[in-house]
Amino acid sequence: MAKPMAIEVYNPNGKYRVVSTKPMPGTRWINLLVDQGCRVEICHLKKTILSVEDIIELIGNKCDGVIGQLTEDWGETLFSALSKAGGKVFSNMAVGYNNVDVEAANKYGIAVGNTPGVLTETTAELAASLSLAAARRIVEADGFMRAGLYEGWLPHLFVGNLLKGQTVGVIGAGRIGSAYARMMVEGFKMNLIYFDLYQSTRLEKFVTAYGQFLKANGEQPVTWKRASSMEEVLREADLISLHPVLDKTTYHLVNKERLAMMKKEAILVNCSRGPVIDEVALVNHLRENPMFRVGLDVFEEEPFMKPGLADMKNAIVVPHIASASKWTREGMATLAALNVLGRIKGYPIWSDPNRVDPFLNENASPPNASPSIVNSKALGLPVSKL
Amino acid sequence: MAKPMAIEVYNPNGKYRVVSTKPMPGTRWINLLVDQGCRVEICHLKKTILSVEDIIELIGNKCDGVIGQLTEDWGETLFSALSKAGGKVFSNMAVGYNNVDVEAANKYGIAVGNTPGVLTETTAELAASLSLAAARRIVEADGFMRAGLYEGWLPHLFVGNLLKGQTVGVIGAGRIGSAYARMMVEGFKMNLIYFDLYQSTRLEKFVTAYGQFLKANGEQPVTWKRASSMEEVLREADLISLHPVLDKTTYHLVNKERLAMMKKEAILVNCSRGPVIDEVALVNHLRENPMFRVGLDVFEEEPFMKPGLADMKNAIVVPHIASASKWTREGMATLAALNVLGRIKGYPIWSDPNRVDPFLNENASPPNASPSIVNSKALGLPVSKL
Repeated sequence: MAKPMAIEVYNPNGKYRVVSTKPMPGTRWINLLVDQGCRVEICHLKKTILSVEDIIELIGNKCDGVIGQLTEDWGETLFSALSKAGGKVFSNMAVGYNNVDVEAANKYGIAVGNTPGVLTETTAELAASLSLAAARRIVEADGFMRAGLYEGWLPHLFVGNLLKGQTVGVIGAGRIGSAYARMMVEGFKMNLIYFDLYQSTRLEKFVTAYGQFLKANGEQPVTWKRASSMEEVLREADLISLHPVLDKTTYHLVNKERLAMMKKEAILVNCSRGPVIDEVALVNHLRENPMFRVGLDVFEEEPFMKPGLADMKNAIVVPHIASASKWTREGMATLAALNVLGRIKGYPIWSDPNRVDPFLNENASPPNASPSIVNSKALGLPVSKL
Repeated sequence: MAKPMAIEVYNPNGKYRVVSTKPMPGTRWINLLVDQGCRVEICHLKKTILSVEDIIELIGNKCDGVIGQLTEDWGETLFSALSKAGGKVFSNMAVGYNNVDVEAANKYGIAVGNTPGVLTETTAELAASLSLAAARRIVEADGFMRAGLYEGWLPHLFVGNLLKGQTVGVIGAGRIGSAYARMMVEGFKMNLIYFDLYQSTRLEKFVTAYGQFLKANGEQPVTWKRASSMEEVLREADLISLHPVLDKTTYHLVNKERLAMMKKEAILVNCSRGPVIDEVALVNHLRENPMFRVGLDVFEEEPFMKPGLADMKNAIVVPHIASASKWTREGMATLAALNVLGRIKGYPIWSDPNRVDPFLNENASPPNASPSIVNSKALGLPVSKL
């Protein structure tokens, strides 16, 4: 290895050795591990993405568990190395685990953890934040102000959209899509149109009840509609947020033809997965429609953007920060640490990985369980009765 | 005059000559004037702020009414010139009129119009937009992405605030402050603390009812509290938006001492008036507290910023665009034009300037009235019975 690794060590005499490939937000996760007899080592290598070789070096000869990141390649090589070092568990600090070869983990009997249940609201709030910033051209206006171009109030300066009374379109009304829909409906009195293969009865019922509540308070009620096609949403909505899962059917879901269906002054937001949008087609559309605006948290070939996107004034681009709130990121670190601790201690697996509140309460000890192990069935691990 | 003026003329043979010192958004205002027999002249001088001399030239020898801007100095000189040209009316395209010497207008018998009733929601939405952009560090994150600095997902990259369950503080709970409070309470399930000399019974009742509605739907209710002092709001809130009127008592309301009372990671938003904040103290506070964030639409010495503000990554600065939505700006243009038209035609004055909806309906003729003339009493103008 060319660069020496800077390693931060807590509780050097701890019985179990737990390694985190990155510093993680907060300190609770460290304290929880240390209090239960773990030596905690945190890698501070000044390199955004660690290679397999970097991580092998971190694992060393004796390692009970590793907390790692979505950007690392956890396959045969690393699970073999971890197993040889006596390790029993790896946890991603992420809800997704497409960087993990679960079959390989199964082969070595290594539990694989993830961190569900803490991302919904933070991700939906980022989609709302991008929606409002695009509606009012905040990034563009900030650049103008900082460049010293402002000379005085003008009737035409950065005129944007009033959201109230307009229509918000949601493609994919799962947990995050529904949370976002409610933010825009309740916060800004937008009418909802959504498309999803499954009916979102819960969301529909809520918006109906909320509309009645507004009416009872002497206000204009909001409305909802389940669209029979995605195209219907694209044609009718003033603001559209994408929340589908990424698979073959949703690859380039928003392409040249579908962009052309949207209103000339519509706003498009994507906090789901980059390849859902044909980014080259999007750049062309932005170029030809200066009042069409977009807010993007994800990109087709992350960390890169397609040529021209970085120059578009009608785009807002942020580096995959949908889950980047203090509460969520500290929660993710806690859950990842507790996945590792639970397996080391031989605790059972928590029965509902989407109800992880008891693990996040800072004023109480967490339950004696691993919050979320994705291959618990394959490994035959017992489920908690708590 | 050095530069020649570019004048756009509609209906050159119109009986009444109406001048707009600036192009204004939309075309309905032009059509309304033209349909009623006005010749409309729009000045396209490439200069942000017109001087008194520029406007005298625009008024010329014969002018029935002028639509002007908050950035122009409407005093003795201009009203005298307008009167000599046979003019009866001037309307600001703004709700404020601190650029107008109303006494001078009275002296020459000239009606002064403004454009209330269309700014509330658009201004509150900008405050919400700045709140969310600051919470999630959108401007900073966009700059990072465009600069090509993003190399891959990192646990610590642009970690911001989750608003849900936090406390929103509102200083000044008038129309705009209350609309903003509701956006944050309903949209993001924030608890409300507000300070105002007057009790906002309407807001309190609404938040109480909304909390009950949430509870009836099996959710955590939101709460509200009227603070006994402004300091209480500053100490307790995670996000604070300023909506006071500007007078001697609110000048530098937020100063060094009060900034020090706020939470280290709080967010402060100002879409009211610049001098409400001591901007020099704010720059120091931003420098010393990197996680304290601010969203500003107004500045102490507009159009300028105090030294250092433009370099702060934890500030978002936009050029006084609180009312810059298409709906509001076109509405302002319509109301300003109808103020002028109504006086030229000898129509009465609309009885409630805050209920201007009938003037804004694009599918119907507006009422035969001037929507809002601020010196109608002084001039003894009749009030509409409509």
